[in-house]
Amino acid sequence: MAARRLVVIGGDAAGMSAASQARRFKGPDELEIVAFERGHFTSYSACGIPYWVGGSVEGPDALIARTPEEHRERAIDLRMRTEVTEIDLDRQRVRTRDLAAPGATDAWTGFDDLVIATGARPIRPPLPGIDAPGVYGVQNLDDGQALLDALRAVEGGEQPRAVVVGAGYIGVEMAEALVQRGYRVTVVDQAEQPMSTLDPDMGRLVYEAMCGLGIETVREAKVTEIRTDGEGRACAVVTDDAEHPADIVVLGLGVRPETTLARRAGLPLGESGGLLTDLSMRVRGQDNVWAGGDCVEVLDLVSGRTRHIALGTHANKHGQVIGAGVGGGYATFPGVVGTAVSKVCDLEIARTGLLEQQARSAGLQFVTATIESTSRAGYYPGARPMTVKMLAERRTGRLLGVQIVGREGAGKRVDIAAVALTAGMTVEQMTALDLGYAPPFSPVWDPVLVAARKATAQVARDVEHTAGGR
Amino acid sequence: MAARRLVVIGGDAAGMSAASQARRFKGPDELEIVAFERGHFTSYSACGIPYWVGGSVEGPDALIARTPEEHRERAIDLRMRTEVTEIDLDRQRVRTRDLAAPGATDAWTGFDDLVIATGARPIRPPLPGIDAPGVYGVQNLDDGQALLDALRAVEGGEQPRAVVVGAGYIGVEMAEALVQRGYRVTVVDQAEQPMSTLDPDMGRLVYEAMCGLGIETVREAKVTEIRTDGEGRACAVVTDDAEHPADIVVLGLGVRPETTLARRAGLPLGESGGLLTDLSMRVRGQDNVWAGGDCVEVLDLVSGRTRHIALGTHANKHGQVIGAGVGGGYATFPGVVGTAVSKVCDLEIARTGLLEQQARSAGLQFVTATIESTSRAGYYPGARPMTVKMLAERRTGRLLGVQIVGREGAGKRVDIAAVALTAGMTVEQMTALDLGYAPPFSPVWDPVLVAARKATAQVARDVEHTAGGR
Repeated sequence: MAARRLVVIGGDAAGMSAASQARRFKGPDELEIVAFERGHFTSYSACGIPYWVGGSVEGPDALIARTPEEHRERAIDLRMRTEVTEIDLDRQRVRTRDLAAPGATDAWTGFDDLVIATGARPIRPPLPGIDAPGVYGVQNLDDGQALLDALRAVEGGEQPRAVVVGAGYIGVEMAEALVQRGYRVTVVDQAEQPMSTLDPDMGRLVYEAMCGLGIETVREAKVTEIRTDGEGRACAVVTDDAEHPADIVVLGLGVRPETTLARRAGLPLGESGGLLTDLSMRVRGQDNVWAGGDCVEVLDLVSGRTRHIALGTHANKHGQVIGAGVGGGYATFPGVVGTAVSKVCDLEIARTGLLEQQARSAGLQFVTATIESTSRAGYYPGARPMTVKMLAERRTGRLLGVQIVGREGAGKRVDIAAVALTAGMTVEQMTALDLGYAPPFSPVWDPVLVAARKATAQVARDVEHTAGGR
Repeated sequence: MAARRLVVIGGDAAGMSAASQARRFKGPDELEIVAFERGHFTSYSACGIPYWVGGSVEGPDALIARTPEEHRERAIDLRMRTEVTEIDLDRQRVRTRDLAAPGATDAWTGFDDLVIATGARPIRPPLPGIDAPGVYGVQNLDDGQALLDALRAVEGGEQPRAVVVGAGYIGVEMAEALVQRGYRVTVVDQAEQPMSTLDPDMGRLVYEAMCGLGIETVREAKVTEIRTDGEGRACAVVTDDAEHPADIVVLGLGVRPETTLARRAGLPLGESGGLLTDLSMRVRGQDNVWAGGDCVEVLDLVSGRTRHIALGTHANKHGQVIGAGVGGGYATFPGVVGTAVSKVCDLEIARTGLLEQQARSAGLQFVTATIESTSRAGYYPGARPMTVKMLAERRTGRLLGVQIVGREGAGKRVDIAAVALTAGMTVEQMTALDLGYAPPFSPVWDPVLVAARKATAQVARDVEHTAGGR
């Protein structure tokens, strides 16, 4: 019997990365690892579901990074279809229920270290009809399969109609998927513009592009009901002033941290309901309870506050950090700058740092600069337009955020700003960045540099025109 | 008459950017600007010449960012086809010769500020036959036009043969151009591998890819002669052990700073022959003489030494900085980290920071990590392989350099490392970078992060295995 036991709740990215990394540090003689997963899959890419549904990826197998068997080969005692129903911190144990054997009695498993990686649950507003057949979420592979089965059943006759509720990342990615399957797609969102992860002026560019792609985009619309037909099946999405017929309704409203167990155990939660941890991903106030992935809040390095950001790339990093900590190593997750990238058909959408509203609510004052440029030298074939918006702090000129909307070559340019934000650079410092230049890759001034130059000028102008600046 | 006069030597990127930027600061009443250009063109993209020659860009007009007329509209007294033959620092004047009027006497023009932007000249080793018809450089638009005319004259019959001497950036880009025109292409270089701007292990990947593209690549070959036919025209490139028949010979051996005038004027030059400046691009020891572009050495922020790097993107930045300085503003060019990106057909090649040899010669000790990954999530269509090599300083783990060879999506990832280098990040800090992730854009761990993780492990292993580390 091993000296210590690690119990992991949740078999997706954060939990299983933690388990695998802990295993690299400690062999089975030193550390027993037991992981509980209530679903049918481990370590899968939920982010890939829209592409599977859209038909550009073969699923679900391709989306699974590591199967239960592969985990077990690494001496991880992985128990599938087993739900943890209680965390007993005093006695250092968790209660579990075998979902595959409904009559079985609950069991208790003790732990020396506990990793909470319970993920997130999709937002599902309590609307009439929301639970009707024909309404689909896209949170996990089971959801993806169910949606795909339903889509295939509907396809074949006249062009079918799909309504996507929510125009955030999941919403626009699902809109793309449904367009690719030949659906007539309507996206309904309550915000002023789609992609409310962008400022409205940048979101408007997404709106215009979505219209250009033939996606009907209904803005500032509050969904009041999912109407059902005589058979109780969803047939339309009703808003305060319209009704949008639908053969299929897809919910793309984002997610909330799934922390029911943690809340019941009295663990500290942030404003979003996500667990609060220290920099080593240990739950605040706990010695041997760790948490990572979509169920935690992370430190936003720009605003100085914790936020909930559900992203597989963060979950993987959390897992690595936790596994090192549990294994007796040392690693930290210093925080995020809020980078995200997405696409809808050939439109690329990216942001990092703070939006205007986020900066204001963090107490920051700023200037903005928006520029248009191209992905390559203007004369080079395939040069595509992009718009870059930059926020810089007043007076200091510190970079606060960047948003990019464009075509091929636009999205990943946000990484330049993500690193600059992490380093605390000013926009003037950014103007001197030695970025890769050759005509097939960039104009002689990379679009991010053009934005930095304009932002630098705006900072100077602001100083000049402000009494305090003289 | 204006209060002061700025004289600019050289009408390409650095010189005309300086002139334009100075004009933004000072109107014609305050500052007279006289610029001399000995050639036929201003403000053109020499980097674009290979794509013009290859037929993917319409030239030469598309490559001209700003014509002489456009400059003149900004109240810049631009004198084309006028060569500066002497800089007289004592009397603050330059002597010029009108190349369009061969008999004309030289004239003197006084200056209050002088900008030296004399660019670079292609390396042309003193080999037998090097000046024969049929041997072409690709330094300026006139060269490009001459080469293009020659190529068109040769094309039409059997597949023509071209030999490119030099397998650096210009060499591989010209190889691509000639392949696109249907030539049978041989590239001859004296280095162990093509792209000696990469470490040999990474250069080998370029070699293999070039072979795969049907480009014959001859390594470790010293060119001894350009053989000429009975009419005195180049017909083969001779190396110490072979002869490579050629209908066209292209020289792609890189460039040296063109600083003949500066040397004669006694201005300070570095090891490469490039002018040495301070951070505001003022020539060292001078109050009112500035220099920028391909004729200067720049500070390498990683090695702490000055180097010569001929790149349009630096030249433009220099011009902006000089223009601000001349105009009474304030700006600096802090230095470079040595970023470069290129492509040959669909192979993307990028580097930033130091190569192994450069690090050694700067007195740095380091560990290396090389990884293979993909441009997108492995399951996403269009995911292409890439190899990332990372150098990290021993003990401190500071990033020293990154080299990337891959296909679509590989090249511009070097920008992540360029910003991290500028910020002085360690490879461990880089593992936490919040880079844009979505399946169409990146694997869940971006390739640069994968390399950073491996480099971090290497740094730790090195510490562990070194006596001083215990």
